[in-house]
Amino acid sequence: MLNFSFVSPTRLVVGRDTHKQTGELIRQYGGTKALVHHDSGYVKTCGLVDEIIGYIKEAGVEVVELGGVVPNPRLDLVYEGIDLCRKEGVDFILAIGGGSTIDSAKAIAIGMKYDGDVWDMFIEDDGVVRAVETEPCMPLGVVLTIAATGSEASNSCVITKEDENLKRFCDNDLHRPVFAVENPELTMTLPAYQTAAGVVDIMSHSFERYFYNAKGGNEFTDRLCEAVFHTCMNCGRILVDDPMNYDARANIMVASTYSHNGLTGMGRVGDFASHLIEHELSGEFDVPHGAGLAVITPAWMKYVYKENPEIFLKWATRVMGVDMDFENPESTILQAIARLEDFFRFLGMPVRMSEMPEVGIIGEDVMRRMAERVRIVNAEDCTIGAFKHLNADDIVEIFKLAQ
Amino acid sequence: MLNFSFVSPTRLVVGRDTHKQTGELIRQYGGTKALVHHDSGYVKTCGLVDEIIGYIKEAGVEVVELGGVVPNPRLDLVYEGIDLCRKEGVDFILAIGGGSTIDSAKAIAIGMKYDGDVWDMFIEDDGVVRAVETEPCMPLGVVLTIAATGSEASNSCVITKEDENLKRFCDNDLHRPVFAVENPELTMTLPAYQTAAGVVDIMSHSFERYFYNAKGGNEFTDRLCEAVFHTCMNCGRILVDDPMNYDARANIMVASTYSHNGLTGMGRVGDFASHLIEHELSGEFDVPHGAGLAVITPAWMKYVYKENPEIFLKWATRVMGVDMDFENPESTILQAIARLEDFFRFLGMPVRMSEMPEVGIIGEDVMRRMAERVRIVNAEDCTIGAFKHLNADDIVEIFKLAQ
Repeated sequence: MLNFSFVSPTRLVVGRDTHKQTGELIRQYGGTKALVHHDSGYVKTCGLVDEIIGYIKEAGVEVVELGGVVPNPRLDLVYEGIDLCRKEGVDFILAIGGGSTIDSAKAIAIGMKYDGDVWDMFIEDDGVVRAVETEPCMPLGVVLTIAATGSEASNSCVITKEDENLKRFCDNDLHRPVFAVENPELTMTLPAYQTAAGVVDIMSHSFERYFYNAKGGNEFTDRLCEAVFHTCMNCGRILVDDPMNYDARANIMVASTYSHNGLTGMGRVGDFASHLIEHELSGEFDVPHGAGLAVITPAWMKYVYKENPEIFLKWATRVMGVDMDFENPESTILQAIARLEDFFRFLGMPVRMSEMPEVGIIGEDVMRRMAERVRIVNAEDCTIGAFKHLNADDIVEIFKLAQ
Repeated sequence: MLNFSFVSPTRLVVGRDTHKQTGELIRQYGGTKALVHHDSGYVKTCGLVDEIIGYIKEAGVEVVELGGVVPNPRLDLVYEGIDLCRKEGVDFILAIGGGSTIDSAKAIAIGMKYDGDVWDMFIEDDGVVRAVETEPCMPLGVVLTIAATGSEASNSCVITKEDENLKRFCDNDLHRPVFAVENPELTMTLPAYQTAAGVVDIMSHSFERYFYNAKGGNEFTDRLCEAVFHTCMNCGRILVDDPMNYDARANIMVASTYSHNGLTGMGRVGDFASHLIEHELSGEFDVPHGAGLAVITPAWMKYVYKENPEIFLKWATRVMGVDMDFENPESTILQAIARLEDFFRFLGMPVRMSEMPEVGIIGEDVMRRMAERVRIVNAEDCTIGAFKHLNADDIVEIFKLAQ
């Protein structure tokens, strides 16, 4: 087990009708005037935003509203939010929505405690940050409406500067939300495709941590990751036939939070190559993140498993229920990957690029362009990934396996 | 899944040499003058306390020292600590040790933010509290030296008022420690018996939550509990032959924290009958808590499993590796309980009262006396436990099974 430091101070308030507690929670965390931030989409048109604003006002907290968040949340709206909060004297930010809205809210909360340009806080292409948070951001709460990104309790925030097409991140424990309200009923009306994409994203956050290239040493964290996998697979299957199943929704929602708050990464190094490769696929073809991960993850597994077959055998036998083939361990692993693809298909996810209407059959030139563009995070050898260091040639091979 | 609210803001700092960060951590959490609290035992005589005091002073933080904590930590020392902290202008409490030292430190930290008698915060025999914390206690940190109670990140604190022989508790999220330093190397010199008793206690904290009398609904929390069980059993076995095994120590240490910080109880009701029954056994015969649990837990299981065999079958097949006997499911459960007893025996723990030199063979009159004294927490029907409500007659039967 590697040394680590981990903190996740976000209070989870989980269950039926819990969104009605939002006003009380904001007051409890010192808010007197709250910015309510959302995407102006279904959460607004279905009346949820207005219902929650009612609860906030009932608790004696004033409200300022700002909608308009888009997927890959934009810096311009963050600036607008900061200006609005300063003008109005806001002291609390509430995000109602999923990952994009939460990240936009986080960026506003960060900016509220910094005199300069909030963009200074985000990692530059040269890996340098111009300014680092040293005090907590403005208190931030979440009412979660989709289980997927884990941003409701994570320390990460991703913002896009649209004029330069720059997508950058800012990770700091000082901007973890103070509470996350998780009412599983709010996720019941999600389209099956979005539910499924969320399940894949949740699993992926723990895959990125589980497949760690070391021999043993992480019994407890291994088992925590496996808890996420089992939950996503068992409850994800239930939701295909019974999308209104409360317990299945609830378990997936809670698993989403723990899959990306850092718990499943304790004592090891994350990989995140699949995420980085998928970002390029999404960027090129505008496919949903979860669907892209359903395509890239199995291909990544097939390409890298030989680096440390033991951890793949652990997953194959404990999680995927494959009998260990002692004469031919490799077949055990390949069968487990095939079962994962079966599961993703059962959810209605694509598992090949050619199955995605947005992508189809693509040439090696396109694969190479995407591979070259993958953000190279390891400066020394210009590779991505920790389980196996991948260069652009490796990434092209993974795209071929995903074809 | 039942509605729940859960927060665990304690920062875990885990790994080799992490105790050297103690001074920096205290400073980071605002401490300028720290009370260093301990039991004046091995932690002091081996030089650890003085080593850590050195790191604290290096960080520019002043130190006041108070030793003398005893098992079942006493109110008198808490009063002494509060007086000392007030006199010296202490603004941070550091516990170096295990559950008793941490609880004593918590009580001092609570008392520092209350003008009245700190004992007012503890539950009275009539179930009433005379005063409730409404603001966080004085910031409190921990350097953990034994994995067992989970107090390093829990919201609970148990103190004994020695003149009246009253043992009372105070549970509040406002007194969770701000950090817990967990260097597994500090636990390597523990006697095998203490290590084993710790493992049983850790498992018990999740048993008390896992065996919940409802049909399904808690996939994720079930799996988190199972992560604790697997870790304790696999790593506990390793330590019998190889007590210096770093990874086994590390995994058990982290599991101890999560087994009792509330994570494994999300969305369900805890039972805690085994803990309450064991407290009487400990009180009567002065046996170590973990050893008492190794005796009481299997007996409790045998007495109650028929209330909800499904959850016991889940545990038997998933955790204990028993093949499901579909013709005779009961035998599956009984075999799993026997395997648990085998495991406890392998660790060197007793599994019958008659195997404990402090207890031996006792009469039904003694069992009845202990049973009558068990704190009755359910006012309506005067029973303990949530999985099966147990009255004094039931408790006597459990003692007989543990004979």
